[in-house]
Amino acid sequence: MVDAILRAGVLGASGYTGADVVRLALTHPNLEIAALTANTHAGKPVAEVFPHLGLSGLPDLTRIEDADWSGVDVVFCGLPHGTTQDITKGVLEAHPHVRFVDMSADFRLRDPDTYEAWYGRAHTATDMQGEAVYGLTEHYRDAISTARLVACPGCYPTAALLALIPLARAGLIDIGDIVIDAKSGLSGAGRGLKEGSLFCEAGEGMTPYGVSKHRHMPEIEQELGIASGKPVTISFTPHLVPMSRGELLTTYVRTPGGQRAADIRAAWQQAYADEPFVHVLEEGVVPKTQTVRGSNHCLLNAFDDRIAGRAILVSTLDNLVKGSAGQAIQNMNVMFGLPETTGLEQVALFP
Amino acid sequence: MVDAILRAGVLGASGYTGADVVRLALTHPNLEIAALTANTHAGKPVAEVFPHLGLSGLPDLTRIEDADWSGVDVVFCGLPHGTTQDITKGVLEAHPHVRFVDMSADFRLRDPDTYEAWYGRAHTATDMQGEAVYGLTEHYRDAISTARLVACPGCYPTAALLALIPLARAGLIDIGDIVIDAKSGLSGAGRGLKEGSLFCEAGEGMTPYGVSKHRHMPEIEQELGIASGKPVTISFTPHLVPMSRGELLTTYVRTPGGQRAADIRAAWQQAYADEPFVHVLEEGVVPKTQTVRGSNHCLLNAFDDRIAGRAILVSTLDNLVKGSAGQAIQNMNVMFGLPETTGLEQVALFP
Amino acid sequence: MVDAILRAGVLGASGYTGADVVRLALTHPNLEIAALTANTHAGKPVAEVFPHLGLSGLPDLTRIEDADWSGVDVVFCGLPHGTTQDITKGVLEAHPHVRFVDMSADFRLRDPDTYEAWYGRAHTATDMQGEAVYGLTEHYRDAISTARLVACPGCYPTAALLALIPLARAGLIDIGDIVIDAKSGLSGAGRGLKEGSLFCEAGEGMTPYGVSKHRHMPEIEQELGIASGKPVTISFTPHLVPMSRGELLTTYVRTPGGQRAADIRAAWQQAYADEPFVHVLEEGVVPKTQTVRGSNHCLLNAFDDRIAGRAILVSTLDNLVKGSAGQAIQNMNVMFGLPETTGLEQVALFP
Amino acid sequence: MVDAILRAGVLGASGYTGADVVRLALTHPNLEIAALTANTHAGKPVAEVFPHLGLSGLPDLTRIEDADWSGVDVVFCGLPHGTTQDITKGVLEAHPHVRFVDMSADFRLRDPDTYEAWYGRAHTATDMQGEAVYGLTEHYRDAISTARLVACPGCYPTAALLALIPLARAGLIDIGDIVIDAKSGLSGAGRGLKEGSLFCEAGEGMTPYGVSKHRHMPEIEQELGIASGKPVTISFTPHLVPMSRGELLTTYVRTPGGQRAADIRAAWQQAYADEPFVHVLEEGVVPKTQTVRGSNHCLLNAFDDRIAGRAILVSTLDNLVKGSAGQAIQNMNVMFGLPETTGLEQVALFP
Repeated sequence: MVDAILRAGVLGASGYTGADVVRLALTHPNLEIAALTANTHAGKPVAEVFPHLGLSGLPDLTRIEDADWSGVDVVFCGLPHGTTQDITKGVLEAHPHVRFVDMSADFRLRDPDTYEAWYGRAHTATDMQGEAVYGLTEHYRDAISTARLVACPGCYPTAALLALIPLARAGLIDIGDIVIDAKSGLSGAGRGLKEGSLFCEAGEGMTPYGVSKHRHMPEIEQELGIASGKPVTISFTPHLVPMSRGELLTTYVRTPGGQRAADIRAAWQQAYADEPFVHVLEEGVVPKTQTVRGSNHCLLNAFDDRIAGRAILVSTLDNLVKGSAGQAIQNMNVMFGLPETTGLEQVALFP
Repeated sequence: MVDAILRAGVLGASGYTGADVVRLALTHPNLEIAALTANTHAGKPVAEVFPHLGLSGLPDLTRIEDADWSGVDVVFCGLPHGTTQDITKGVLEAHPHVRFVDMSADFRLRDPDTYEAWYGRAHTATDMQGEAVYGLTEHYRDAISTARLVACPGCYPTAALLALIPLARAGLIDIGDIVIDAKSGLSGAGRGLKEGSLFCEAGEGMTPYGVSKHRHMPEIEQELGIASGKPVTISFTPHLVPMSRGELLTTYVRTPGGQRAADIRAAWQQAYADEPFVHVLEEGVVPKTQTVRGSNHCLLNAFDDRIAGRAILVSTLDNLVKGSAGQAIQNMNVMFGLPETTGLEQVALFP
Repeated sequence: MVDAILRAGVLGASGYTGADVVRLALTHPNLEIAALTANTHAGKPVAEVFPHLGLSGLPDLTRIEDADWSGVDVVFCGLPHGTTQDITKGVLEAHPHVRFVDMSADFRLRDPDTYEAWYGRAHTATDMQGEAVYGLTEHYRDAISTARLVACPGCYPTAALLALIPLARAGLIDIGDIVIDAKSGLSGAGRGLKEGSLFCEAGEGMTPYGVSKHRHMPEIEQELGIASGKPVTISFTPHLVPMSRGELLTTYVRTPGGQRAADIRAAWQQAYADEPFVHVLEEGVVPKTQTVRGSNHCLLNAFDDRIAGRAILVSTLDNLVKGSAGQAIQNMNVMFGLPETTGLEQVALFP
Repeated sequence: MVDAILRAGVLGASGYTGADVVRLALTHPNLEIAALTANTHAGKPVAEVFPHLGLSGLPDLTRIEDADWSGVDVVFCGLPHGTTQDITKGVLEAHPHVRFVDMSADFRLRDPDTYEAWYGRAHTATDMQGEAVYGLTEHYRDAISTARLVACPGCYPTAALLALIPLARAGLIDIGDIVIDAKSGLSGAGRGLKEGSLFCEAGEGMTPYGVSKHRHMPEIEQELGIASGKPVTISFTPHLVPMSRGELLTTYVRTPGGQRAADIRAAWQQAYADEPFVHVLEEGVVPKTQTVRGSNHCLLNAFDDRIAGRAILVSTLDNLVKGSAGQAIQNMNVMFGLPETTGLEQVALFP
């Protein structure tokens, strides 16, 4: 497969995650952009919508219904949740050869009732919901390799689960006492016109949002439930930070067996020894978002808490890359038998 | 006292906290700046060191030893910890009439051993350490009114304790299970030349620091110990946010009696009903640093956690104002019998 | 007049300039906010629209048509251009006692044809256009003192004209060769939901806009024409800078008589010797926006260019204060015989 | 040459330009990092100095004198000016096979007297000064291809000269009336510990600096003199913008023949038709730094001024890439006969 050229379509190419798939695809040796859809901007050249993508000879934006999927091998979907279900279903039924990498939230939850409870509407493609593989590459690699529909995790769940799954599996932490304090840059809020996303509103300040209500919670709970074999409820509070990219989770856990940060680090090192994108930092080194900006890396570290029997986990990644578009490309590499790091070797952009 | 003019000296006027005392003093109707010290900049006009203060006819910067304290009524000290002790002692012994509002860390801890353990050196003014009153105005107002030496709390302790003291006193929270996730702008790191404080290093990113080691921890523990009547150890992790001013604490607590956010809000409303600077926001409204930038206000709110028996507290303030210089002026108002809000009525600067 | 309480209405209180009038009014000893209008937010408490103004006991927002102007002494208008004309006319005709301080663009241009050419519509209150006094306080103080309708200059014109009028009057510069390179923070773009104003779009970058087309140009040309006695056409290019407040103009001029920066500084010093808000910095000191953030000050300096016969002027101010709301208050002070600095003594907020 | 592996040394690897060479080299298929020097950090792993480079298996930092240059094919030099001369001379004399790509200022000026006048010291390697080729790839490609020592232009000169050289050659502009207003992010100021580079000082503000004194001026004048065949003096004023990367120049020119923006665009299109990294945008489209962040592209556009006979040029690039490290790699590609875009295909990182 290494020399194959795969033709890719990107749904929702006028959003930030769609754009970052395009950015990465442009230097991926096996990818060719065949179609870019963005209904409200259909007919425009890419340069009008994303000037930074406008120097690369891409096709103009089209409406979804006008795109020709017959020659397309893989579709990346960056549409808002809700709209994705029917479109996915339509494309996959009409073009069974297409493989679908979904970056929206629509196929992440396995349980239709949970979906309905958190998203306020019944799922309209429950059969595909069952078929979808959860695209946390490091933990679902085998299933991803043969999947037709991969549901990439949300950005927060990626950072949370890479830290917590190995610990939950190993029983190192009290699964009933997990507090996740999450911080994200503004790109996580998307490109929609919201007052809170204006430079003057979000700059020089920080604010919690969606306290106890963020839709990434059930996804984290679902996967921690599978890892631990028990139902899980977490405490999760996200915050907006005045930066564009990057996300950092500080997770407070209880270690019932009195395990220390060193034990957590050892569990991670074992779980991720061969992983190209998950890194356990040296003891005492603090992960920071600056180190991963624009790259597909996720950094982890653990610290002893002064309260006995507690530990502090820090995980960081670029929400648009490892938290979305990069992980999507990584999954595509797995699905098509390419080396997993293909097109994802970028070093972070710092400063 | 209302018409009195008090002559003030500011020690460490080339730092951010010193400068913010000067900023506030310039519009305080009862304050006149008599002396500004900054040893490395002695002899310079203020405009060279802080151009924004240079339009107001202030005296030039001098060395501490060259300042004339005889006509000075009150000294604000913005020196680094460690250097403050001897200077305070010297000034107060030579000029017993002077009242001293210390914004450094040197007199906050009541126990000399705790001081030595956290600051790595023995305290050299332990007698004054005993005399100093902890300057959390809302909880030590009476003692402050007659104190000669007031040790203003650190910025993080102010935000933490305003939220936690009423709850600890009322037994609403499990004092052994307090997790504080703190976020601060760069001015909290001071004006010193540190690589991590450069725009290119701190911008567009966020990073935890001082994990389990920050020197504001013992101060919070000391005061929560007093409030609850038990020894307290907390979990405390601060983070640097790419903004200049502002600080926000998300505090995760357990409510042993099953109390909800509404109970916490009720306890706060009772404690702070008459306070001009502490505000319990409407139910569901999220405090954000933007709302307090440049002002002396502290905002509080509480939210139910999805984990039963847990709650999420959010407190925010401007680290240089209510977290330092503003609280210092507030204490001075109390010490000299002035209305407590004098000179502190500024509305936050937004955007 | 010094002890009088003036009742003020603010039109367009949900925009940034309206909000900054309210911020300043709240600590102005002679002002009481009687009415706040914001049609799309009518009925809401101020705290919902501007949390930082929500701690001060202000009236709720109302629709313009529901406000009672009978007891109002002064109206500050922060509406968008175009909508202002009819409303101003309506208020002033119904309530002849009211004095009107307009921060919109509607009454700045004296010539109806110029207005129509730049704003794309005929002016609907040309009689009042004739009556309006241009509110550049330092140069129109006498006329302002007796005016019923004051049209405050735009932010760029304020910074440009304070630098250029004394030079144009004295014939120090070639009036046909003025190049103004202007830089502004995002608050100058208002609170409207525009993609270019999003944090992710405007952050970590800068961009020119409105090249050769910005509507502040005719206003600058009008006033320079008056000052020099000749028709003037300028070169003016504004740029968006990733900050919320502040504006800095670098103006490149030719000095036909070979005058140097020192001559320009001397002309300014003479013109502004008694002005409380216009400051000529020491020779060689560079004005920067940080020095005036949140304050009503304007800083000027001039530098020799390496090209003989040219000079470089730098002027800076806070676009929302001296460039808008602060200047509006300053004009109101003049109109009502109050000391001109009343309520405007705030020192800049730095850092 | 296309499959060759070149061994590279980087001098000054602890600075931002050095680090960006390493970032780009890590994904360049023909480059292998053989040595990284940084005297003050010698002995440390790269991860300690630049965490974002620490995931890639690079050699530890060494002192210059400890590096083994025998197997090195190319040296990239990111040292401060002044220190570079002797080191360059030493390396090239001891290792004649090495080719040297200098990003410092030491070999950019052809005239030793000009060097001494602007840098305050006599040049100590004047023979090499004569040998050095000015590394503005698009205009010195042939000479670069055979050069042993290439002096890469400063970031401002690159943006200025790409815009101005074709116009100066074609006589489209009045060479005696060029006003360059330049804006740069903080990384242009380097990683040194300067108060003005602190987040709190540089954030939320902008400031001119080095007015009429910046050392990039003689370099621009030198090259415009060559292009026009006449001595040139320019007006040049740089400004610091609160962003890390990116630089934008607004250049005001006079067109003696009454040429319009369209003529300028035509001249550029002719000059740069085949250039992979220089782009003339569509008519009316404004270049902005966001479009080039992290990439090697330079964007140009021209606009009619309202003053007849004047035009406004806008050019933008990433100061660390096309303005420094990227251009250095581009020159190396030319020197070694590689396709010029090798390793430089990165799309800009946006947002």
